Amino acid sequence: MNLEELARGAGEWLRGTGAMNDIVISSRIRLARNLADFPFVNRMDPEQRRSVVETLQSALRNASDRAWQYVELDDLDELDRQLLVERHLISRQHATGAGRRGVAVSPCETVAVMINEEDHLRMQVMRSGLELETIWTEIDGIDDRIESEINYAFHERYGYLTACPTNVGTGIRVSVMLHLPGLKLTGEIERVFRAARELRLAIRGLFGEGTEYLGDFFQVSNQTTLGKSEEEIVHEFRHQVIPRIIEYERKARQTLLKERTLALDDKVWRSLGTLQSARTMSSEETLTHLSHVRMGVNLGRISEISLQTVNELFLLTQPAHLQRIQGERLNGEQRSVVRAEYIRRRLSQN
Amino acid sequence: MNLEELARGAGEWLRGTGAMNDIVISSRIRLARNLADFPFVNRMDPEQRRSVVETLQSALRNASDRAWQYVELDDLDELDRQLLVERHLISRQHATGAGRRGVAVSPCETVAVMINEEDHLRMQVMRSGLELETIWTEIDGIDDRIESEINYAFHERYGYLTACPTNVGTGIRVSVMLHLPGLKLTGEIERVFRAARELRLAIRGLFGEGTEYLGDFFQVSNQTTLGKSEEEIVHEFRHQVIPRIIEYERKARQTLLKERTLALDDKVWRSLGTLQSARTMSSEETLTHLSHVRMGVNLGRISEISLQTVNELFLLTQPAHLQRIQGERLNGEQRSVVRAEYIRRRLSQN
Repeated sequence: MNLEELARGAGEWLRGTGAMNDIVISSRIRLARNLADFPFVNRMDPEQRRSVVETLQSALRNASDRAWQYVELDDLDELDRQLLVERHLISRQHATGAGRRGVAVSPCETVAVMINEEDHLRMQVMRSGLELETIWTEIDGIDDRIESEINYAFHERYGYLTACPTNVGTGIRVSVMLHLPGLKLTGEIERVFRAARELRLAIRGLFGEGTEYLGDFFQVSNQTTLGKSEEEIVHEFRHQVIPRIIEYERKARQTLLKERTLALDDKVWRSLGTLQSARTMSSEETLTHLSHVRMGVNLGRISEISLQTVNELFLLTQPAHLQRIQGERLNGEQRSVVRAEYIRRRLSQN
Repeated sequence: MNLEELARGAGEWLRGTGAMNDIVISSRIRLARNLADFPFVNRMDPEQRRSVVETLQSALRNASDRAWQYVELDDLDELDRQLLVERHLISRQHATGAGRRGVAVSPCETVAVMINEEDHLRMQVMRSGLELETIWTEIDGIDDRIESEINYAFHERYGYLTACPTNVGTGIRVSVMLHLPGLKLTGEIERVFRAARELRLAIRGLFGEGTEYLGDFFQVSNQTTLGKSEEEIVHEFRHQVIPRIIEYERKARQTLLKERTLALDDKVWRSLGTLQSARTMSSEETLTHLSHVRMGVNLGRISEISLQTVNELFLLTQPAHLQRIQGERLNGEQRSVVRAEYIRRRLSQN
């Protein structure tokens, strides 16, 4: 896998296409599976780990004629593992793990299959915008084809067996990454959080569990994997949960637009001005300003910057991407300078 | 006096000319005098107030062929009195006082004579930059010519008598308005404060006693009016006190320039970016950003904005000026919007 080249592209999750892409950044479905003939990952010895990697690589090749790119994480340095995290191709946990483990990525990065993460197999399909039904069809097909090659650990009554009991059953996690600056600004985001808790949904930050809500990005996902079919979970997400949050966000934006135009414009333009002027900027501050600018572009308050540029900047200003683009290792202070430079250059090209 | 026209001009104190004008905004000498034949201002009845105004107006006309513009403050509304404060032509105390009182202003606003402020007569000569000797010659001449017209309250041993004992003697106050963003940023300003206290100097904010140090402006003035001649006080200020502070500020700026270039540039450019982008801005925030931009221009970090523009903005974005320019009364919120608009327009003209 050419990570150099990868770092320069936009990545599926921030492509800015797909349904409702003013609010829905990306949709993702992940399935957790294990091989019947091996113990769970945390119980495997090095030989078994290698064996699982080989078995699954071969199953993937046979199951699909996609040009999978397999990356062995144990051979990668920390920076490149971080790059894959920033692109949402692997989890943080997978990046910082140990032993033989990897990820197979499809062209365009829509499919990523982690091997030896918490489970033997964690496959995800991710698409820009709200595209859960397409994604479900796609991942269900891949899952079936893999299953025809190997034996999944499956229990008649409980369903697919997983290392952590919270995933047992369907092993599915449906997540939608939402950009909710309107609800954040009007202070109504807390209401969404409460409603989500009542529906037994999890809301996480940009990089999943335990990460902050940077840049007003919120990842909503199901917590329950038992008692409902995959189709039911996907349907509920696609037609009830997400549309309701989108509606709230749209209302918040309309309120800002009609009743607080000045405060909205001030925030949006100050953020753009700061991005265009600063000589040093942390990634956290960058996310905050880009979030405001993204809202400004979506609401037609800023017309000189394209949504694509903003989306790209979200991705490419992250630490590992920045260093890959720059072609050298940089400490935090150096990154902040290079980041500010890169942003200024990119925004002046519009 | 045409205040409409006045409001659009730059005013002497921010003209940006004169010696050391990168650090010294303006120099000012003020003399406090009283008429021998009248009680002090706080003891006068309305008839006496009127009489003092007439006596001094006539003395001024006879003493100088300048085209004095006299403004009776009691006839002015609050906004126009505020305008004169913002231009440093009258004190805050004079603006908010009561009864017949006024100010005579010379063309170009270099000389301003307050009548019936704390003393019957308070004349000031103000010039851009460090020009204390020129100013002293000028004010001393005016004082002599007035004295040839009227009887000052004078005591053989104590000198000129004033309403407040702190002014007795020479009645002189020498003030220099300094722009010290470097010392503020390096945190060394406190050392200057300590040194000033030891030299029995007062350091005040932009509008004199009790005002904050907005925009990194510091007004240094003498506190003692007894025991030294006027020439000694002026000489000490011109050749010892002020040059030393200037030297400190230059060193601080050089340190920033050499050792903290990035932090300096970041501050300076972010301030410019914010001024160019914001949709609403308070006068306090404006002063802070303009101060950084002024330093950036002085240190050659910003070349697209002229010092004159920055100086003008300091003056013209103040509340009364803004309303005069706009030609209408505005509340605080409206002013912030008009101010932000005005700044954006002015900065895009460069």
